[in-house]
Amino acid sequence: MASPCSSLSPPEVPMQLHVINREKLVKSLQQHLADSGRPIQGLVLLQGGEEKTRYCTDHSELFRQESYFAYLFGVREPGFYGAIDVATGKSILFAPRLPKEYAVWMGDIKPQSYFMECYMVNLVSYVDEMEEVLVSQYDGEDKCVLYLLHGLNTDSGNFSKPAEFKGIENFETDLSTLHPILTECRVLKSKLELDVIQYANDISSEAHVEVMRNTKVGMKEYQMESLFLHHTYMYGGCRHCSYTCICATGENSSVLHYGHAAAPNERTFMDGDMALLDMGAEYHFYGSDITCSFPVNGKFTADQRLIYNAVLDAHNSVIAAMRPGVSWLNMHKLAEKIILDGLKKGNIITGDIDDMMSQRLGAVFMPHGLGHLLGIDTHDPGGYPKGLERPKEPGLKSLRTARELKEDMVITVEPGCYFISALLIPAMENSDTSKFFNPDTIRRFMVFGGVRIESDVHVTSTGCKNMTNVPRETWEIEAVMAGGKWPPEKGLYYSDNGFGNPHS
Amino acid sequence: MASPCSSLSPPEVPMQLHVINREKLVKSLQQHLADSGRPIQGLVLLQGGEEKTRYCTDHSELFRQESYFAYLFGVREPGFYGAIDVATGKSILFAPRLPKEYAVWMGDIKPQSYFMECYMVNLVSYVDEMEEVLVSQYDGEDKCVLYLLHGLNTDSGNFSKPAEFKGIENFETDLSTLHPILTECRVLKSKLELDVIQYANDISSEAHVEVMRNTKVGMKEYQMESLFLHHTYMYGGCRHCSYTCICATGENSSVLHYGHAAAPNERTFMDGDMALLDMGAEYHFYGSDITCSFPVNGKFTADQRLIYNAVLDAHNSVIAAMRPGVSWLNMHKLAEKIILDGLKKGNIITGDIDDMMSQRLGAVFMPHGLGHLLGIDTHDPGGYPKGLERPKEPGLKSLRTARELKEDMVITVEPGCYFISALLIPAMENSDTSKFFNPDTIRRFMVFGGVRIESDVHVTSTGCKNMTNVPRETWEIEAVMAGGKWPPEKGLYYSDNGFGNPHS
Repeated sequence: MASPCSSLSPPEVPMQLHVINREKLVKSLQQHLADSGRPIQGLVLLQGGEEKTRYCTDHSELFRQESYFAYLFGVREPGFYGAIDVATGKSILFAPRLPKEYAVWMGDIKPQSYFMECYMVNLVSYVDEMEEVLVSQYDGEDKCVLYLLHGLNTDSGNFSKPAEFKGIENFETDLSTLHPILTECRVLKSKLELDVIQYANDISSEAHVEVMRNTKVGMKEYQMESLFLHHTYMYGGCRHCSYTCICATGENSSVLHYGHAAAPNERTFMDGDMALLDMGAEYHFYGSDITCSFPVNGKFTADQRLIYNAVLDAHNSVIAAMRPGVSWLNMHKLAEKIILDGLKKGNIITGDIDDMMSQRLGAVFMPHGLGHLLGIDTHDPGGYPKGLERPKEPGLKSLRTARELKEDMVITVEPGCYFISALLIPAMENSDTSKFFNPDTIRRFMVFGGVRIESDVHVTSTGCKNMTNVPRETWEIEAVMAGGKWPPEKGLYYSDNGFGNPHS
Repeated sequence: MASPCSSLSPPEVPMQLHVINREKLVKSLQQHLADSGRPIQGLVLLQGGEEKTRYCTDHSELFRQESYFAYLFGVREPGFYGAIDVATGKSILFAPRLPKEYAVWMGDIKPQSYFMECYMVNLVSYVDEMEEVLVSQYDGEDKCVLYLLHGLNTDSGNFSKPAEFKGIENFETDLSTLHPILTECRVLKSKLELDVIQYANDISSEAHVEVMRNTKVGMKEYQMESLFLHHTYMYGGCRHCSYTCICATGENSSVLHYGHAAAPNERTFMDGDMALLDMGAEYHFYGSDITCSFPVNGKFTADQRLIYNAVLDAHNSVIAAMRPGVSWLNMHKLAEKIILDGLKKGNIITGDIDDMMSQRLGAVFMPHGLGHLLGIDTHDPGGYPKGLERPKEPGLKSLRTARELKEDMVITVEPGCYFISALLIPAMENSDTSKFFNPDTIRRFMVFGGVRIESDVHVTSTGCKNMTNVPRETWEIEAVMAGGKWPPEKGLYYSDNGFGNPHS
């Protein structure tokens, strides 16, 4: 239903998206097997997620599909397995066999034909028939090989859990081939995937604007979270968020992952505070990840403008430089340099920028990485494929990827500048770096908190496209907070340099 | 901040609530040990919940404390342990020792004194010092006994996980004493607990009214969920819900636990639909659990009024009969009888009510139990203490408790009447029950869905108090959906029989 509160409505996502994902995997896997002189046969087998209850109780957490399984099959129900024949590309879903009472408590028990049609697979069978069906599907010689998912997530340090089922001992299992290949498939997005990520960005951008407009001194941080969640669900159909909302004001905005249970978005906005809101909705598994920073009273002070514009300059310069072949490590350093330069112009730090860079001073003000791959996971996997080492230096070691950009990556660009006592005080006391700080000015900023500006960017063949569309220039933010339209009527409060135009 | 959208604001919950909970446990445990001739010594030890990540990723699910731990300590942060000296009542919290980087990413590392003051315990130490501290606290003879939590949750069939830590092998552990005693403590609510449950009811009742008022033909079920979540969070400070919202319309309203990932509240409202909305917010761990049923177009049809009033009559009659000493099993049967009587008056079924009762016909129309204990868990534990058998008959076997009511229990009263093909068709074909059905009339109702009316009721010394305050009479609902005030101005659209007055 159209609404005066939103220009959007939840789109139907074609299941073809997952058919294409499967085809891509099969092609990559066939290529890999051919290249390594192995027979092109066997079955990829993944186990989907299970519904979980809370501790010992019967409280069910809202189920969200495991991401690799979601990528290949798009199945939203728990308890499934999925297989793909490496030789033919034929796909099979195994549904849980539900007890009769399910119909009373949980809803219709859907027939196999429903899942076959809905998820566009070649065959649907039950989990308890899996061994038999897998054997009958396989017409190679020897034992059937099952390619199972097992590998390191370089953000969490955890390993994905390979599928398990009764009878698996009658198959040959391969734990090493699938994970790097499937992960690499996820790194480059298809047209249909990009459409979904764009929608998640559109509804989240709109919600950020809605939040900005409703921000008033005296409100609570969690009210911003509530407004965002409501807008993206009510008008956008987004039941899940990509991650727990970070709604930080004042000093809290220097806590990079604020908002969790031990720091739960509950401060009251004070006049003069900056807000840092890092919130993104998820739609049909694909996420968005957007940060806006702005003064809660709607007017930037000179100090706020100084820090904000240093970060915005970094954000815009990185986006202007992004294209296939560019090193993400260099983009991170570019952002650091621009921020340091801004701080130097503001008389907060002093000295030679190259000298600062070699002392890794940037990491004091921006301890996190410039950005990360984005997709079905907020921190999408594939940031460090085999052979690519994680940097060890402060700041750089926080990068979730150090790859070269490739066409059809989606990556966040999220420079930030924070005044974090736990980092600043040691750096100001350190004999190598103390010289850079202007003690008189920096004192003023010790309770400033921080600014982060984050957009989701699609790397195109010739450059990139910013998928996020929110007010970025200080005058745009001030205009929207004063009731101005977003997107603005043409020429109204865009700057003329093209920066800040999210679709440039 | 006061808001025109709510008459409420989130209250400060005194931590004294948990001090009283601990005192209650210590008293019960001392009594039990004395009664069984055992020495009054040893330590209760509970392990709090841990933050979880989603599958192999670094996506953190929003942490919610384990309920027994929440009951005793009220701690909202993950990674804690808590101990209570059985002889002295002295309480100790063990906090996780956080790495230095926590301050950069997650927020201030709070000193032990903060937790001591915030949670009103006698001592705070670190988890890695637990063995040492526990030994030093204990001044009994022999090895120190640790009373650990291990026992069956009768709703889930799962067992609570006893605390584990390095060095536990140097203690004597008792796995059987604590669980039934602590569970029984949770069954009867203190004044301070009742205050929090009342607040959760107040904000959730207000949100239900807000949802009712905004319901229009053409909307989506999930929009009701979004409105509810937003109202309770934005104005009520409720970040968690007691359970996943059930927002069922049309035929979906006969699916008892609709709303989960495989049936995700996504139907569009059709003119003539009934809506069944089962939604409750949680505040400071304590929950509410409220169901409202109403026509989405704001006007009851004769058929809708018939089913609705049969259920409302059951709801009101049970509440009128509730007092300490009353058997919940009998209350369930009372509700069944009244609903059957209503269906008989509506010419849907025919025959002798007692005959229907002995054939368990009530379970065809209400397959779930009349209600359950409510507290820190939506299905609060303690429904079947040792020695109390779960009934085996249809309908009755679904009861989450078959206890006698006691003063200061909080229990939901949630009769329902549903037209569920999976139950109706077999019953209409069964030679013992087919005679009861009027095939001409019942055909009209096969796609009706269902009605449930659910309030949270506090058993007092002389009767009970309905903690839920929403429009219940059909004319109240129609008035509110047409824009009328709730609560109404005195005498405006209350019936004069006192039923429907939620605080009668």
